[in-house]
Amino acid sequence: MQGEHQKFMALALAEARQALALGEVPVGCVVIKDGLVAGRGHNRRETDGDPVAHAEILAIREAARNLNRWRLTGTTLYVTVEPCPMCAGAIVLARISRVVFGVMDPKGGAGGSCFNLLESPWTNHRVAVLSGIGETAARELMQEFFQRMR
Amino acid sequence: MQGEHQKFMALALAEARQALALGEVPVGCVVIKDGLVAGRGHNRRETDGDPVAHAEILAIREAARNLNRWRLTGTTLYVTVEPCPMCAGAIVLARISRVVFGVMDPKGGAGGSCFNLLESPWTNHRVAVLSGIGETAARELMQEFFQRMR
Repeated sequence: MQGEHQKFMALALAEARQALALGEVPVGCVVIKDGLVAGRGHNRRETDGDPVAHAEILAIREAARNLNRWRLTGTTLYVTVEPCPMCAGAIVLARISRVVFGVMDPKGGAGGSCFNLLESPWTNHRVAVLSGIGETAARELMQEFFQRMR
Repeated sequence: MQGEHQKFMALALAEARQALALGEVPVGCVVIKDGLVAGRGHNRRETDGDPVAHAEILAIREAARNLNRWRLTGTTLYVTVEPCPMCAGAIVLARISRVVFGVMDPKGGAGGSCFNLLESPWTNHRVAVLSGIGETAARELMQEFFQRMR
């Protein structure tokens, strides 16, 4: 199981590297259903000029199109960085069953750091949360981005 | 000023009625910049099969396209119902200056009811919040929807 998490997080990290190559905050995401990639995304806010184009939103929308339903029950979302409030809200609304993330975001994370929207009872849906998978690689990508910015 | 709020909320209510006509939870939204409509949207989750297709997300994305920038500073967002966590997060990320909403959502509202994400310091951006504009009409639309559902 740990090996499976590492395998899918590696795909999310590959997405994050695509964001970095675009000069975007390097966050990547995949949505997995029955061991297959249903959706993938990387942060494209600046590139697309779209304020909601976070990795998770793009991966969730792609998964909904591919699975032909907006209820993504039975899927696991892998994201390199703890989701922000918008993305945590989207994860709950999309009925995603499990979230695996890499590095915490102490400034705005909504998977337990600043807020806990994933496990908060604002809908009947509950999301299982696992963190720390691929943490070092995810953090290094973020550090590389912020060093380039200086 | 109150008259201006009523005028723009009427546009959001017209969007909400379009959602109701589609059999969607009737929530409507407009984003206003310098007295003009920059973006509009109504809930289209079922219609589009898109878990993130809430009124606010669609209106924000349209405003960003029309204004050709993802930072929507200087805009006011009118929405008939208090934003959920996803939409409140999107409002903050989009740097919207002010939110005017109609009816509170005690079950999941993130504009002060369940959560206060709009005024919470998870980014440096602050949103001014005004509620109760067009409240009766917004509530009646919601009641009509839930009566039809039964």
